[in-house]
Amino acid sequence: METRNMTGTSPFAPRGTAQEIEEGTTFSPKFDRDGLITAVTTDAKTGELLMVAWMNAEALARTVETGEAWYWSRSRNELWHKGETSGQVQTVIELRTDCDQDTVWLKVDVAGDGGCCHVGYRSCFYRRVPKGEPAKLEATGATKLHSHEH
Amino acid sequence: METRNMTGTSPFAPRGTAQEIEEGTTFSPKFDRDGLITAVTTDAKTGELLMVAWMNAEALARTVETGEAWYWSRSRNELWHKGETSGQVQTVIELRTDCDQDTVWLKVDVAGDGGCCHVGYRSCFYRRVPKGEPAKLEATGATKLHSHEH
Repeated sequence: METRNMTGTSPFAPRGTAQEIEEGTTFSPKFDRDGLITAVTTDAKTGELLMVAWMNAEALARTVETGEAWYWSRSRNELWHKGETSGQVQTVIELRTDCDQDTVWLKVDVAGDGGCCHVGYRSCFYRRVPKGEPAKLEATGATKLHSHEH
Repeated sequence: METRNMTGTSPFAPRGTAQEIEEGTTFSPKFDRDGLITAVTTDAKTGELLMVAWMNAEALARTVETGEAWYWSRSRNELWHKGETSGQVQTVIELRTDCDQDTVWLKVDVAGDGGCCHVGYRSCFYRRVPKGEPAKLEATGATKLHSHEH
């Protein structure tokens, strides 16, 4: 979609051969047909998985340039500077990509109350699926940092 | 696509209200328009991010039932029992989902040589993007477990 693409020239390199993509030193992120790339965000200190979100090229470019996490909100259909309203700004300690460069991994320090999840938890992953019980979720014991209104 | 859907009845619960999805005890995974859900896999012992892949409903159901990781290979367009040929079978120690249940997180023990990445590294995330340099990748110092032919 046009609104998800950057205006002007992309700061990223064009996609090369499989060898260049997998073993090279050029960042050529692969965006899907909606112009998005998956972003996995972990706590730089504890390693905890905090959230999984999506970025368009502009969000990724701003993240690389500013050292703070920007995403693309698929529900609001807009660029999203994480923490701008909540104070939970994410400072990127390290940004990695994977073998085929269709995912990025952000190791972050979280400001504010240290949370990431809009439901009120530090991490979005506060429930587990028990083995052999595909319709069930169990609490992991995570506690809320703040309450959440539906 | 038909081939990505399970035949027969889904073992998962239907999607409920936002409150049920975010705060309930029912697993109602959200598959995208290709019938896939994002799966983030970390090492259960070290917490290291190993890989990000996708599952269709059948792969997710098999993962819950068997306690081993199954994915959907988008490049081969087929169900993928991780490690079946490489020996790098992933035993799921814990399976979590996130607030809106459109991502799953697998904490795994990896068999064989302990690797995950087809390029030969333990983790697919063996390169970083330097701050302010959006077209560049740097090695993280990760070493290969085995070599890889293109």
